[in-house]
Amino acid sequence: MTTTMIDLINELWFLRRDIVSDGFDQALHRLAEEVPMRIYAYPSGEPCWTWRVPEKWTCHAAYLETLDGRRLLDYADHPLHAVSYSLPFEGEVSREELLRHLHVHPHQPEAIPFVFKYYVRDWGLCASQVLRDSLTEAAYRVVIRTSFEPGTLKVGEVIIPGESQRSFMLVTHLCHPAMANDDLSGVVVGLDVARELLAGPPRRFTYRMLILPETIGSVAYLSHNEQLIPDMYGGLFLEMLGNDAPHALQGSFQPDSQADRCFKSCFSSLDPTGYTGAYRTIIDNDERQFNAPGVRVPMLSLSRVEAPKSTGRPPYPEYHSSLDTPAIVSAARLEASKKIVLELIDAWERNQYVVNNFKGEVFASGYGIWIDYHINPQGHRRLFEIMERCDGERTVADIALELGLPFHSVWEVVALLQDKNLVWLNPLPQPTAPAR
Amino acid sequence: MTTTMIDLINELWFLRRDIVSDGFDQALHRLAEEVPMRIYAYPSGEPCWTWRVPEKWTCHAAYLETLDGRRLLDYADHPLHAVSYSLPFEGEVSREELLRHLHVHPHQPEAIPFVFKYYVRDWGLCASQVLRDSLTEAAYRVVIRTSFEPGTLKVGEVIIPGESQRSFMLVTHLCHPAMANDDLSGVVVGLDVARELLAGPPRRFTYRMLILPETIGSVAYLSHNEQLIPDMYGGLFLEMLGNDAPHALQGSFQPDSQADRCFKSCFSSLDPTGYTGAYRTIIDNDERQFNAPGVRVPMLSLSRVEAPKSTGRPPYPEYHSSLDTPAIVSAARLEASKKIVLELIDAWERNQYVVNNFKGEVFASGYGIWIDYHINPQGHRRLFEIMERCDGERTVADIALELGLPFHSVWEVVALLQDKNLVWLNPLPQPTAPAR
Amino acid sequence: MTTTMIDLINELWFLRRDIVSDGFDQALHRLAEEVPMRIYAYPSGEPCWTWRVPEKWTCHAAYLETLDGRRLLDYADHPLHAVSYSLPFEGEVSREELLRHLHVHPHQPEAIPFVFKYYVRDWGLCASQVLRDSLTEAAYRVVIRTSFEPGTLKVGEVIIPGESQRSFMLVTHLCHPAMANDDLSGVVVGLDVARELLAGPPRRFTYRMLILPETIGSVAYLSHNEQLIPDMYGGLFLEMLGNDAPHALQGSFQPDSQADRCFKSCFSSLDPTGYTGAYRTIIDNDERQFNAPGVRVPMLSLSRVEAPKSTGRPPYPEYHSSLDTPAIVSAARLEASKKIVLELIDAWERNQYVVNNFKGEVFASGYGIWIDYHINPQGHRRLFEIMERCDGERTVADIALELGLPFHSVWEVVALLQDKNLVWLNPLPQPTAPAR
Repeated sequence: MTTTMIDLINELWFLRRDIVSDGFDQALHRLAEEVPMRIYAYPSGEPCWTWRVPEKWTCHAAYLETLDGRRLLDYADHPLHAVSYSLPFEGEVSREELLRHLHVHPHQPEAIPFVFKYYVRDWGLCASQVLRDSLTEAAYRVVIRTSFEPGTLKVGEVIIPGESQRSFMLVTHLCHPAMANDDLSGVVVGLDVARELLAGPPRRFTYRMLILPETIGSVAYLSHNEQLIPDMYGGLFLEMLGNDAPHALQGSFQPDSQADRCFKSCFSSLDPTGYTGAYRTIIDNDERQFNAPGVRVPMLSLSRVEAPKSTGRPPYPEYHSSLDTPAIVSAARLEASKKIVLELIDAWERNQYVVNNFKGEVFASGYGIWIDYHINPQGHRRLFEIMERCDGERTVADIALELGLPFHSVWEVVALLQDKNLVWLNPLPQPTAPAR
Repeated sequence: MTTTMIDLINELWFLRRDIVSDGFDQALHRLAEEVPMRIYAYPSGEPCWTWRVPEKWTCHAAYLETLDGRRLLDYADHPLHAVSYSLPFEGEVSREELLRHLHVHPHQPEAIPFVFKYYVRDWGLCASQVLRDSLTEAAYRVVIRTSFEPGTLKVGEVIIPGESQRSFMLVTHLCHPAMANDDLSGVVVGLDVARELLAGPPRRFTYRMLILPETIGSVAYLSHNEQLIPDMYGGLFLEMLGNDAPHALQGSFQPDSQADRCFKSCFSSLDPTGYTGAYRTIIDNDERQFNAPGVRVPMLSLSRVEAPKSTGRPPYPEYHSSLDTPAIVSAARLEASKKIVLELIDAWERNQYVVNNFKGEVFASGYGIWIDYHINPQGHRRLFEIMERCDGERTVADIALELGLPFHSVWEVVALLQDKNLVWLNPLPQPTAPAR
Repeated sequence: MTTTMIDLINELWFLRRDIVSDGFDQALHRLAEEVPMRIYAYPSGEPCWTWRVPEKWTCHAAYLETLDGRRLLDYADHPLHAVSYSLPFEGEVSREELLRHLHVHPHQPEAIPFVFKYYVRDWGLCASQVLRDSLTEAAYRVVIRTSFEPGTLKVGEVIIPGESQRSFMLVTHLCHPAMANDDLSGVVVGLDVARELLAGPPRRFTYRMLILPETIGSVAYLSHNEQLIPDMYGGLFLEMLGNDAPHALQGSFQPDSQADRCFKSCFSSLDPTGYTGAYRTIIDNDERQFNAPGVRVPMLSLSRVEAPKSTGRPPYPEYHSSLDTPAIVSAARLEASKKIVLELIDAWERNQYVVNNFKGEVFASGYGIWIDYHINPQGHRRLFEIMERCDGERTVADIALELGLPFHSVWEVVALLQDKNLVWLNPLPQPTAPAR
């Protein structure tokens, strides 16, 4: 009995999923009902490489009132009204003082912004620009009742065991309270991909799908699972997959990695309207921890970012605001993104070194793979261009990029050759040319 | 007593040199009178990697008649009238049925085309477009009396032993019946080159000149001589060397091989009107088998292709037609091509790593190699630019390509330095810089 | 008690500092009073790789007279009037014969040119174009009293011992008689740099500052100190540093060496008006011997060449003429050049591989190195771009070139990280990514 992606979003989006919080735990436990999940708990204060796990944060109440008691905004109405990890504060403040602590959205005058102060602490409230503009009195009353206490940071891990320990990471974050596209859409797509992989036959790679609070969650997981890192051969971060925009594929820090080569050679046939960008040029997320020094897992990222980082504009209009609700997320787009992730994984599984059992050119007509060049000159040429690169030194993706062909066109030929026992696939290079 | 290249063409061109046939054998044996030749015979059915040697094919008679006995075309008049390896067929056929089996040339309305069906078999006749257009009767009588029987595929090999087992391959094919430029011109140039090499002093490399039926001949030879492949350091395929066009040099699959570097750095000074192209961009022939996976001999190709493959036009107007006769081949052009092949081979022999006996800059005036920069500034600069690259890590061709100079200009300086005992030549890199 | 750079120039410039001569020795011994210097003496005839040390040359007298005894030019007035290493000659010569031996400057009609005939010997005098144009008589009397005798070529070496034997070479030549900018300006800058290094704390590298006659001096030194060559990791030739022009940095023969990478990533911030050029494109000097085959020390060159070699113009207007006097050299420019050399050396010392003590991204705010991206988005980005390249596989210069940043900007961040014990520096690569 599985819940659909869109239903999960509708159910969980409004929870107060701050990085270490009851809301986060509640959401994660709900997701764990949908798929077998291991949940790691790292206590507050626990060292994680150069970091430490923060305290659990709870906002008991937060509101702004006029001095005569008219309530202007209330955390009870919307979790974004309090800065995430705001210090507690209670008292009368001058209008000037208030404005220094009252955050608004830079682009959306009607929306409450998402603001967090995890490490550079302060007290703060969030409001729409419209409300802020209406504040003309000399002083206001602020109430922020928050508590910081020892807790545990949670990371959910869905393992899909494969034929080997070599693994591929799917990473999502869950810590954006009361928003839907960023970040819940990536979580549910990752979850559904995991459900699909679990239901299917074993793959060559072990897959690990992670659900965690951004940055500190990845650092906590990696620093407590260092022994797994050398087996991580690639990864994909998932986020912002419900909004109405084409897909964006961001490369890893190592643009020549097989993960990059494989996904880039697939991508344009999976979403012809999509675009690609180099590492750190589209959007930054947890892939940064995986690509970082001492870790160096080639992790790409898939999103529907409309305006890449380099434009200076927000990734999509409702980004980090109270307008990021299920209304901007469509079930069809989630399905389409899930399909693309599954196809990327299929390609990743197939992307091995193509080793020739043959020498010389293959007797194509004898093997029933002849393409008459009078009838299909391009097909004939492609067949031979692919066959002559099956030499144990090139992966499927290498051949695709060398020939400027989509991964899937090369795969079709390679699969045919494999079927005829003319080639076999190997995870490592296996050169067949005579040493000279 | 040697026969000239052009006389050999005149003598042999009209023979029915189908891939496994009495005509092929007759031509090859005649050529074996001109030079010491080993002839390999591979029986029909013999496995050759993914291929098998085909049966011997003989056309006893083939003609087309009107139902009232008027003969419209006859194999006795021209061997191209029958599709090479046509199945036998005898009977009355409707005009429609006939046209499906009657091949014409796509560009030359007056010419009989060269058509072959070695592996995808069918019966067929060939005629001029003009004749075909005149066929207006409702039915015709076809007679094709061919036989398929066990025979032996022949490969001729002329060996010019060198100082080492390392070898260089010269490859030509002989299987184009009743045509002159394609393919006999390449055969006679290769043969004359072989005669010249045999008459000269021993070279560093062993040379092997092959005469064979296209594709299957190369596969048969290579698959039965696998132990020779690791010693094959380079090769050159020869074809279409008699027609009136500049030379075309096609690179190998490994454009950075020393064979490619050497020939490319020579070529423009050997035929200033010539042009070069990457692997598979000018014309495809037996170099494909040598460059293929598991073999990977860097084999270039020299021809006088007018219109490279990429243009979509035929290599030269008379290509694969009854117009490809000795009339389009000139003795002077064959000589010019032979000269170029010999000069390429000279460069290949010289193209070793240049190892410095000296350290620092050479005391040029002390060695009598000073070029006054007031008198010849470019010569002075070139001398020093070449000398400072004589470091045991670069071949003559490497230096030439690095400096954008013709091979021969670099060789002149290197030969002078060698003469003064300032450098020596080594087949392998021999770095002289201190390890740091 | 040290003498300033400009005072040393004023004191020594007019000496007859021919390559092996009493004047050279006198100048070198005077310089040796300023700094601890080892002086090597190589006797005439001594083999130095492909060279031999020339004889000592002395010009006792040289003049040109009309037949009636009017003296037209006299070596006693200016050392450039005699060709350096001129053969002796005495007698009456026709005007025609005289003109073949009377050299003038190609660009400066009023100046006496600097002409030398070290190895292609002849007798010769030098005069201004103006004087030459005034020679209308039929015959003249020439007196050149020179002697060639066994002597010793001198090389001065100032050693600044470092923490390791690995060394960096600073090279200057002193053999241009009666000129100031070329070559004495480079010598005094080198000397002052050496004095400064000797006064400072020990460096990682040992520095060797050489003062020698051009070309043969370098060959003599290197050929007699071969055991030092493998420890020479980089070098800088210094010359023409007093004239009024921006600095020019010429790369070594190995443009990817760390010396090249380090200096090129520094240079534009050290002299924003300066320019860089590839090896042999700005000016040729002793760096040729160090970059040559069998030596291959990556030695760059720093000068104030106005017109690089490629322009075909002289490096500066007064080049190789009697106009190259202290008048065109300024103390301020010598100081500025010295400062740049010292900053290049500082960068060279710092240019090690940056090895991360951390894994993942650094908890920047926890370490007090957080740059708020709302306040300084570019600084924030740069900080992270630099940190993510601290992986034990890149030097400071590698990171600078990869990011298109000046060396010093990268160094600032690296120094900060080093201060926080987040990175350490290593002379060799020390990869920290897991093997995969």
